[in-house]
Amino acid sequence: MELDDPGVIAEVRAVFDRYEDAIANNRTEVLDEIFWADPRTVRFGTSEILYGHDAIRAFRASVQSYAARRARKIHITSFGRDFACTHLEYERLGSGNVGRETKIMARLPGIGWRVVSAHVSLLKPDPEIEKK
Amino acid sequence: MELDDPGVIAEVRAVFDRYEDAIANNRTEVLDEIFWADPRTVRFGTSEILYGHDAIRAFRASVQSYAARRARKIHITSFGRDFACTHLEYERLGSGNVGRETKIMARLPGIGWRVVSAHVSLLKPDPEIEKK
Repeated sequence: MELDDPGVIAEVRAVFDRYEDAIANNRTEVLDEIFWADPRTVRFGTSEILYGHDAIRAFRASVQSYAARRARKIHITSFGRDFACTHLEYERLGSGNVGRETKIMARLPGIGWRVVSAHVSLLKPDPEIEKK
Repeated sequence: MELDDPGVIAEVRAVFDRYEDAIANNRTEVLDEIFWADPRTVRFGTSEILYGHDAIRAFRASVQSYAARRARKIHITSFGRDFACTHLEYERLGSGNVGRETKIMARLPGIGWRVVSAHVSLLKPDPEIEKK
């Protein structure tokens, strides 16, 4: 299993960049296309728990605009030819809030690269975890 | 690429369950073992941004106890023989806060199943996303 094959990373990065552009411009049809059209697709959003492409599509249709954001760090690791984990750390332009977005991409037979799981959240203090 | 092969799902679920037990009992050595010992491993926690196994291990060592939680839903999808996305939706017992945890597992050659990326967050309202 080759890790971080440059060709694979480049393909995944192209999908990643296309997605960021679609978020910035709320291009719903592109966001819908990039997510795997399957009931098993998951999107844990900042304030949503969505199972299945139908639920994700309904959410997309409800959004007028996403909060504008600036990437602070992008970290992608690929495993073999068909699987990659993409990580984005970002800052929202208006509030300065820091968010994190993990998107898992799989190259599905006959379909191509799709996001099969996504998790987006804002960084928050968590006093319920007790430190030493 | 076979999806959701029952044997693969069972292997991944065994790691998932072992991890949950280790969180409940703060077994740091098990948590450290389950995460891939590599600089590329990522853990986005509720209040942490951690790149690399060293940073993750330092965080584990700093924790006295995690907030006790009850699983509300577990959803696992496997892709081929070596990759799986695991999703946990949980409720914290003390506060009732709802959290989500995504763990990406890869079966690494000569090593076995490891978490290569994790993202944990609490569900929060997000007024910065403008709805229609």
